[in-house]
Order: sequence, then C-alpha cells, then structure tokens
Amino acid sequence: MLDLESLFNLSYPMCIICSKKGNRFAGCIVNAVFQIVPEPPMVTVSLNKESLTHDYITDSGIFTVSILAEGTTLEFIGRFGFKSSRDIDKFEQVEYKTGQNGAPIVFDNVVSFLEAKVVETIDVETHTLFIGKITACETIDDSKIPMTYTYYRDVKGGRAPRTAATYIKRKQNRKKELKR
Amino acid sequence: MLDLESLFNLSYPMCIICSKKGNRFAGCIVNAVFQIVPEPPMVTVSLNKESLTHDYITDSGIFTVSILAEGTTLEFIGRFGFKSSRDIDKFEQVEYKTGQNGAPIVFDNVVSFLEAKVVETIDVETHTLFIGKITACETIDDSKIPMTYTYYRDVKGGRAPRTAATYIKRKQNRKKELKR
Repeated sequence: MLDLESLFNLSYPMCIICSKKGNRFAGCIVNAVFQIVPEPPMVTVSLNKESLTHDYITDSGIFTVSILAEGTTLEFIGRFGFKSSRDIDKFEQVEYKTGQNGAPIVFDNVVSFLEAKVVETIDVETHTLFIGKITACETIDDSKIPMTYTYYRDVKGGRAPRTAATYIKRKQNRKKELKR
Repeated sequence: MLDLESLFNLSYPMCIICSKKGNRFAGCIVNAVFQIVPEPPMVTVSLNKESLTHDYITDSGIFTVSILAEGTTLEFIGRFGFKSSRDIDKFEQVEYKTGQNGAPIVFDNVVSFLEAKVVETIDVETHTLFIGKITACETIDDSKIPMTYTYYRDVKGGRAPRTAATYIKRKQNRKKELKR
C-alpha cells in the first residue's frame, strides 16, 4: 500500500532558504531541511532543480536558512513560496541582512537562522540534496514559536507547490483536518 | 556566532527506524528523517555509524520508519533510543509486524509507517545519509498526533544521546523551556 498522505505525519520546519550569484539574491520556501551531523554541525536541504535558488547555491556554494515563526502570514509565505526570484525581487520591502557568507538572511517573521557552506551535492531525481557545514547560527527572536509544516498545512490552511520535496496531491476529504 | 541551541528551532519527527540482517532485527530512535522527492516518493535518513541498525541497513539495503505518537512514554523511547540492539532484544514485548521488505514495523505508539529500499548512501563525517525509495507507506492510527522532537524535548523533557544527528550540549538555563 502506498498511502502518500500518511507521510504528512513526518514533521518539517517552515524556512526560507537564500543564496546569491554575484550581487543578485534569490530565496524560496523550503521545509526539507535538517541537521544531519552534530559535530561539526552540518545540515542538508532538498531543493527542486527548477528553482533559481538552486542555481544560485550551485554557483556560489553557500546558503542561509531563516526559520519562520507561527505568526507568519500566508501572503508572506506566498511571496517566497509561490513566486520565482526570476520574476520579482522577493527582498523588496522585506527586512533582511547580508550574512557573513554573503547570502541574505530574512529577519521578518523569523525565529533563528543559520549560514552554511556546501560540501557535497547529491543528484536525486527532480531534486538536489545540498550538504552544508554550518558556519554561523543564531536566534533572532526567542519569544517566537517556530512554524512547522503541519501547522502551516492544518492550522493556517497553507498549500505546497508541485515542486516541493513533500508535495502530495491531497484527497478531497482529509480526516486529519477534522481532528485538529 | 555559532549558537547551536538556535538549531533546536528546526522541527523533526520522532521515529523508530528498523532493519534486518538475515533473520535478526535491529531498530533505534531517529529524528533526522524526511521526504526529499515527491515523485517517485523518496526519503533520506541520517544515522550514526556506531549503531547496529546502521550496519543492518548497509547489509540488507532496506529499512522501515515507524512514526511515534505524542502519547509514547519516555520508557518506550528509552528502550529504542538509549540501548543497543547488540545488548537487548528491543522487539521483545513490543507489538510489531514484518514489512513487505522484511524489516520490522513497530505498531505500539505509532501513527504511521513507511518502508524503503536504499538507492544511495552518502558518508558524512560520523554519520551516513541513506537515501531510500518508499516502497510502502500507511497510516496505522489516524486518531493519534505525531510526536515532534520539540514536543519530546520541551514537553516530555526527553534527551538525545551523543550519537544523535541533532545532539547539542544544552546550556544550564534554557529560556525556551520557560516559555512553553
């Protein structure tokens, strides 16, 4: 049996991943990001090959991850999640700073961030796994609660684009939603 | 700045990963597991090289992931998380069934499970990233809420062994705990 909706029970953080190419910035929503080694601290992230952020990371070998808080609006998430940096400047009217590695770190609606340097890339079908050494990480606002992908989906009613690592076509009636 | 506690803001699921070698079973707690590709559905998991489950997956090329529910006791988690399959039979007095791929799937305290076949392994310092194609996935009990690592840590007061992918030595006083 392959009931893909059962995979919704895995937990993910809601984040914005950013990178740069020359003096241009790109960023998008990502949830498939996690720490894989404690010492030296390392993370991995899965990104769709179609995204501009993917190209920029491949080019510069660096990225940042800004972890979103529960209060983040769907509008803000939509700006980074459902639009392409090819079409709009996502950082216009968004509070951000440039990290030590040169990529932007989003400060609006963010609990904490990390900066990383890519040490390995793995080609996996439609996506690439970037493995990165964490070069900096810091909490911005400890009073905020990090948003999980479950919270985004079930409490805020958010959706995922087809390019997302965890995209699953939903059934019409989902019991899980009634429960929460 | 490298404030490793800020990484606690990333969300993870609490799971038991199992594998087999011949007719022997091994399993341990894992949180560094997530879907990385939507179609064909694929997952990746980071496991410490010291664990027996790591050896069994390397040998058999298959694993299962059982996603734990919030009600799971610390005692049950401790059995799979702080002991080695080298020393005790972790499946004694635990409800489980053998998956289609031959590895055990834990049914006690579990919301849903998946079965996977390893297609690639990546050596990363002390850990190995196993990339697997999902061959089966199913919900066992839709009335249960999946346990996140944050819930385990902050609500249940659980700890992580030094071998965990997300192990971070905690400071004496952690503001985050006071907040929840």
